[in-house]
Amino acid sequence: MLAKVGLLKAGEMRSIVGGLERIENEIERGQFKFDIADEDIHLAIERRLIALIGEPGRKLHTGRSRNDQIALDLRLYLRDELAAVIALVTELRATLIRLARRHLATIMPGYTHLQRAQPVTLAHHLLAYVEMLSRDRERFEQAAARTGFMPLGAGALAGSTLPLDRRMVARALGFKAIVANSMDAVSDRDFVVDFLSAAALTQVHLSRMSEEIILWTSAEFGFAALPDEFSTGSSMMPQKKNPDLLELIRGKTGRVIGDLVAMLTILKGLPLAYNSDLQEDKERVFDALDALKPALDLMAKFWPMLRFDAQRMRAAAGGFALTTDLAEYLVVHGTAFRQAHEIIGALVRETAAAGKSLEDLSIADLRRHSTAFAPDAIAILRAENSVARRTLEGGPAPSTVKRRLKELGRR
Amino acid sequence: MLAKVGLLKAGEMRSIVGGLERIENEIERGQFKFDIADEDIHLAIERRLIALIGEPGRKLHTGRSRNDQIALDLRLYLRDELAAVIALVTELRATLIRLARRHLATIMPGYTHLQRAQPVTLAHHLLAYVEMLSRDRERFEQAAARTGFMPLGAGALAGSTLPLDRRMVARALGFKAIVANSMDAVSDRDFVVDFLSAAALTQVHLSRMSEEIILWTSAEFGFAALPDEFSTGSSMMPQKKNPDLLELIRGKTGRVIGDLVAMLTILKGLPLAYNSDLQEDKERVFDALDALKPALDLMAKFWPMLRFDAQRMRAAAGGFALTTDLAEYLVVHGTAFRQAHEIIGALVRETAAAGKSLEDLSIADLRRHSTAFAPDAIAILRAENSVARRTLEGGPAPSTVKRRLKELGRR
Amino acid sequence: MLAKVGLLKAGEMRSIVGGLERIENEIERGQFKFDIADEDIHLAIERRLIALIGEPGRKLHTGRSRNDQIALDLRLYLRDELAAVIALVTELRATLIRLARRHLATIMPGYTHLQRAQPVTLAHHLLAYVEMLSRDRERFEQAAARTGFMPLGAGALAGSTLPLDRRMVARALGFKAIVANSMDAVSDRDFVVDFLSAAALTQVHLSRMSEEIILWTSAEFGFAALPDEFSTGSSMMPQKKNPDLLELIRGKTGRVIGDLVAMLTILKGLPLAYNSDLQEDKERVFDALDALKPALDLMAKFWPMLRFDAQRMRAAAGGFALTTDLAEYLVVHGTAFRQAHEIIGALVRETAAAGKSLEDLSIADLRRHSTAFAPDAIAILRAENSVARRTLEGGPAPSTVKRRLKELGRR
Amino acid sequence: MLAKVGLLKAGEMRSIVGGLERIENEIERGQFKFDIADEDIHLAIERRLIALIGEPGRKLHTGRSRNDQIALDLRLYLRDELAAVIALVTELRATLIRLARRHLATIMPGYTHLQRAQPVTLAHHLLAYVEMLSRDRERFEQAAARTGFMPLGAGALAGSTLPLDRRMVARALGFKAIVANSMDAVSDRDFVVDFLSAAALTQVHLSRMSEEIILWTSAEFGFAALPDEFSTGSSMMPQKKNPDLLELIRGKTGRVIGDLVAMLTILKGLPLAYNSDLQEDKERVFDALDALKPALDLMAKFWPMLRFDAQRMRAAAGGFALTTDLAEYLVVHGTAFRQAHEIIGALVRETAAAGKSLEDLSIADLRRHSTAFAPDAIAILRAENSVARRTLEGGPAPSTVKRRLKELGRR
Repeated sequence: MLAKVGLLKAGEMRSIVGGLERIENEIERGQFKFDIADEDIHLAIERRLIALIGEPGRKLHTGRSRNDQIALDLRLYLRDELAAVIALVTELRATLIRLARRHLATIMPGYTHLQRAQPVTLAHHLLAYVEMLSRDRERFEQAAARTGFMPLGAGALAGSTLPLDRRMVARALGFKAIVANSMDAVSDRDFVVDFLSAAALTQVHLSRMSEEIILWTSAEFGFAALPDEFSTGSSMMPQKKNPDLLELIRGKTGRVIGDLVAMLTILKGLPLAYNSDLQEDKERVFDALDALKPALDLMAKFWPMLRFDAQRMRAAAGGFALTTDLAEYLVVHGTAFRQAHEIIGALVRETAAAGKSLEDLSIADLRRHSTAFAPDAIAILRAENSVARRTLEGGPAPSTVKRRLKELGRR
Repeated sequence: MLAKVGLLKAGEMRSIVGGLERIENEIERGQFKFDIADEDIHLAIERRLIALIGEPGRKLHTGRSRNDQIALDLRLYLRDELAAVIALVTELRATLIRLARRHLATIMPGYTHLQRAQPVTLAHHLLAYVEMLSRDRERFEQAAARTGFMPLGAGALAGSTLPLDRRMVARALGFKAIVANSMDAVSDRDFVVDFLSAAALTQVHLSRMSEEIILWTSAEFGFAALPDEFSTGSSMMPQKKNPDLLELIRGKTGRVIGDLVAMLTILKGLPLAYNSDLQEDKERVFDALDALKPALDLMAKFWPMLRFDAQRMRAAAGGFALTTDLAEYLVVHGTAFRQAHEIIGALVRETAAAGKSLEDLSIADLRRHSTAFAPDAIAILRAENSVARRTLEGGPAPSTVKRRLKELGRR
Repeated sequence: MLAKVGLLKAGEMRSIVGGLERIENEIERGQFKFDIADEDIHLAIERRLIALIGEPGRKLHTGRSRNDQIALDLRLYLRDELAAVIALVTELRATLIRLARRHLATIMPGYTHLQRAQPVTLAHHLLAYVEMLSRDRERFEQAAARTGFMPLGAGALAGSTLPLDRRMVARALGFKAIVANSMDAVSDRDFVVDFLSAAALTQVHLSRMSEEIILWTSAEFGFAALPDEFSTGSSMMPQKKNPDLLELIRGKTGRVIGDLVAMLTILKGLPLAYNSDLQEDKERVFDALDALKPALDLMAKFWPMLRFDAQRMRAAAGGFALTTDLAEYLVVHGTAFRQAHEIIGALVRETAAAGKSLEDLSIADLRRHSTAFAPDAIAILRAENSVARRTLEGGPAPSTVKRRLKELGRR
Repeated sequence: MLAKVGLLKAGEMRSIVGGLERIENEIERGQFKFDIADEDIHLAIERRLIALIGEPGRKLHTGRSRNDQIALDLRLYLRDELAAVIALVTELRATLIRLARRHLATIMPGYTHLQRAQPVTLAHHLLAYVEMLSRDRERFEQAAARTGFMPLGAGALAGSTLPLDRRMVARALGFKAIVANSMDAVSDRDFVVDFLSAAALTQVHLSRMSEEIILWTSAEFGFAALPDEFSTGSSMMPQKKNPDLLELIRGKTGRVIGDLVAMLTILKGLPLAYNSDLQEDKERVFDALDALKPALDLMAKFWPMLRFDAQRMRAAAGGFALTTDLAEYLVVHGTAFRQAHEIIGALVRETAAAGKSLEDLSIADLRRHSTAFAPDAIAILRAENSVARRTLEGGPAPSTVKRRLKELGRR
């Protein structure tokens, strides 16, 4: 660009580019000598460039300030990392979709308040996570869009009197647009907050998954067994397989929330334009990425290796979890909703008092509480049927989930 | 919808609608009697409805659970509030644009590290805030889009066996889409985090404005005088006008960040689906709105009443803040950037040692340091010229800012 | 005090005191008329006092400023509230101690990584919470000590030229000391952070208790049943008792952490002395107290009503959770620790492969792995014996816990 | 201890101690070979010990688990670091006290709302920070006291059946007490929260100092000049000295608040006893120490090198900042407080309208507003006198501050 607008001669440009390539080479081979006196990487490279190519090297920083340069560096870095994060979210999402396809008919209890409430399927449960991850991906994409503005040309804060071509630089660096105000260009770190907000919420989702798998793989739930590759044991207590990985992911959630708090607190009350408080931005970004990327990656590898115990899940899904279905049966057959509630309440209390489960009831038992119960009502009292009848869009019926999986596959 | 799918007869529907309208009326006139035994608003209304219209009232809650109902209520509420917040952001943004139009030529120092760095204009400075607010608006719009999914039909967590029409309900309530998974529908509060993230960052922007105006209206800066309407004084110390409003806005930033932390912490590690921890969502939303909405509104009223002292701002913008311009002059005339830096460094040290300001220098003084200085160089040493020459896109030159204001006006 | 130092005559003092008593009376009976024009409670009372007693009323605020007055008010308020919180922590602690006395021999599994690890007793488990609450109480006492400094006399920020007697005021208001620097007196809110830090950590402890009880009362653990008084059910799903109370307590933890973040963020970067940002202090204190006090109170009422299922707890504590004991047996009888580990590892693998539990083994089985096992070794394989032998100070043996309970009772 | 209770023979003990000393030596000389297969430092050392001394090495970990071991390690580490932090706080406090002694008579404006309010002295202002640091030190000491409990002997969570002597270990390691409950011993990280809470508030205090010095060294305030050693400049803008150090300290405050949030969030809702989420504790501690220790150290070096401009400070402290003194004069001479306020209000308005400053007034001018003004009143209108007369305990009068400095020196 400097050559094109006439601030460098063609020969100078070639000389600078050649020198920079040589320096890149030296850095890659570990031969570049850093000196604390250089203050930062920019001056270190300039010094070496002048040593290599002489005079033209002194033109390297024409039209640039540290303030717009570091804003650019962080945007370039975060742009690449956001692409990597989006790929990882996409992969985890695809993993869960694949896993759901295999568990369309795996019955399990759905919980509210950690109490068994109604039967659902594992596929349906997994798709709840897919929804979260879809939103996460969207959030990272929107963060990436707001990161994609090119700040160079802002100088220290007030632009430049040089005939620079900011749009040409933007195109060359793969940005769609330039930051529209030079003071904003050097003082804006909103795109960092955008990333950290999205990262914190994604990490919260990963911690929700972790919490559930920790529960499922406890002796008490016994819904799944931890893969040996992703758990630690003890020669002393071979009965124990510890879900360390999941606990670490859950623990790192606090850390990413902390990074978000740090960045918001740093920005709060800062006058324009650049202040050195902003130097903290990079460490918060690194810290969050160090937590988030391995967590996403390992979670995608973890899920397929979890060995589910379909029998125990099914066993936990029966019994009193089917009362809503009975009440809805009555509603469809004309009983008012509130009255249906009361009828089933009485039925359940009686059944429990008799030490029986709903699955033990006969049609006669049902009809004693309401004559609206026809012989087909008895079929309701199996979790499989309960799930199969929940065909309402968004529900757990295998047919409905299958349709949803097709939709998800199309995107 | 219940009538359309056959779960209510036409007469029942009319009866229910009539009863609900009467209840609405009673509530508005303060005649509705709340009873703690009703547990919540849903049951209170149902009880009254049954008292008013009898049997059909017992069908009111057909196909609904508290879990999907409260998810709906919060989405409806937040949708309206987001629209209100977006309008307030838009109004503040418009206020700053209008104010900028009046201050295209009001010279002031631009700061880095709270040290005077280079002259800019007040218009240019204000437009940096406009950029922030543009991003804020986009963030709230994206939060609104993610809020706009209809959860009803999810029941407690597992959908329904009733032939409900979720899409019809969505249309009737003004939603574009339905929540695609019933477990997600009752356990998702990501849209609350979306709102709180956007609110926290917007409040950070308002605190940055507040900080600057507090500085500007101090005796030491003296760039502006507080409007009497928005400051408090003291009969004892009439010299004092206190920027209470701005301090309160700055202080409330901590509060909104706290609300965001609270919500993320609440969600962290929650198993699916509904848990009562989520009841905290509403208070965090109310608390953030109570801080944010008045802050946006008052800030929009405040800016136009601030009385700027253009003379003091201009006086602070002169002197050594013009060295970058001199160096860039040399660069344009062929001196290498690094060498130009060194020449101007020497010039400034000499001038300061002589107890003079750059504005006192003659062309002969300049030429003693570099013969590249032609007679036109002397014009650089006035802040007005410095600003006028910074025509690079994104810079403070009045012509450039004017063009930007036109672009902003078009949107 | 004003009378004693001669700033009020005796008659004026009596007149003011009489007037204030009358105003107190009016406020208590709801007869006091507040007027928005009074700005704050201080001016409202002064205005009414002048109306009631004339001239002497105009001397009411001698030597006081709003800045030191509100610092005093908040310290007085928080001092009382801290005493109330300390009493509540003490009561919850006493409740757990009483409950522990009844469960010295109630065997249950101790968990690490939510995996059953070794048998402990319920009493021992409860005493872990007693330790947390002891630290909490100490923290609140230290917060109270730092709150107990009297700020009056600091004026707006620079003290006073009047011959006030700050120490006399401190004594009269029950403070042990005065704030030693007038600027600190009006700008310090560290005592609020002290309270909020202690509150956040106590609330974290309450959330840890809540989490555990939620687990214990799930169908899967079945260690305890929720008391009807503290759980919500559903006429539809009478099998469900929801631990709403515990979920709310867990959820409110996020809120108190948020309050702490808010206060730290508000203070960060504030110049001395008073700034209106500090007005946010009161709401954060109220908000945290609204969460914490009922949580402590209800938790103390909740624990004694929880109905434990000792049989299910005992059943979960057997089996492979006893391997550490076997290894320690070998160590006591001369086997090196690491070698003992390996021997027991082999024994467990063999037993598990044979589909047996450790409790099924005979002494011959043990001796096949190590001849160090004497006949008394077989006794180890009962959880009761395992617990009884863990008499090391701090361990779960009933005799050890009993001794600890006596120590705790003495304090 | 193991030897004393008979679990090691004297020869085994000597052999182990000798081996460990050799390993320490190897580590210090960088000769120790770490192997990823060792899992952690404990096993790495055990493996090497067995290689060096054979059988007795296999007894090294008798009576210890990783869970109590890491709890010990963190407590030992934090105990040392807390001592270092307390020393740094003490040094900074001493620095401010020394500086205050030199500035007993350096008049400067005291601010509220960043508006000049009343004259104080620099010494008085600095002592406000000394109060903060005194509280900080107390908080760290209390954190250290709670850290000083020895957890070893807790094993994985349930203590031990071995005849260990926990109190002997505590004494040997310099602890005053042992953790009283084995489950608490491995799951407690409250002492980490104690440290982080104290660190966050101390860092907030450092950020308040930083904010003020940044203001004072701005061109607008001009109260002090930055030392070259602690500021960065620019060859291009030699007028600029940037307070980078102070901005970095202010920025790092967000980070330490974030660390505190992270730790509280990690602990929230964790069931007993050990969970791997706790592994995050160390990084949060390291991160906070990395911010806090250099900040304290550099701040102590920074203050003495700041060059104050007493003349500019004095000039800013005059004028209308003396009105409170005039009103108090009237109060002492019998005028009611509220009336005195009104009289001075009128006086100030008149003076300002006439374009004069209070310092221009004659005694006749004063007496026109109140005959209570005697000739000595005129002396009030000099900032020096105003300050000297504020002898109330806690006030800025040089005599009062001197007395306070003596008290502080005694501790």
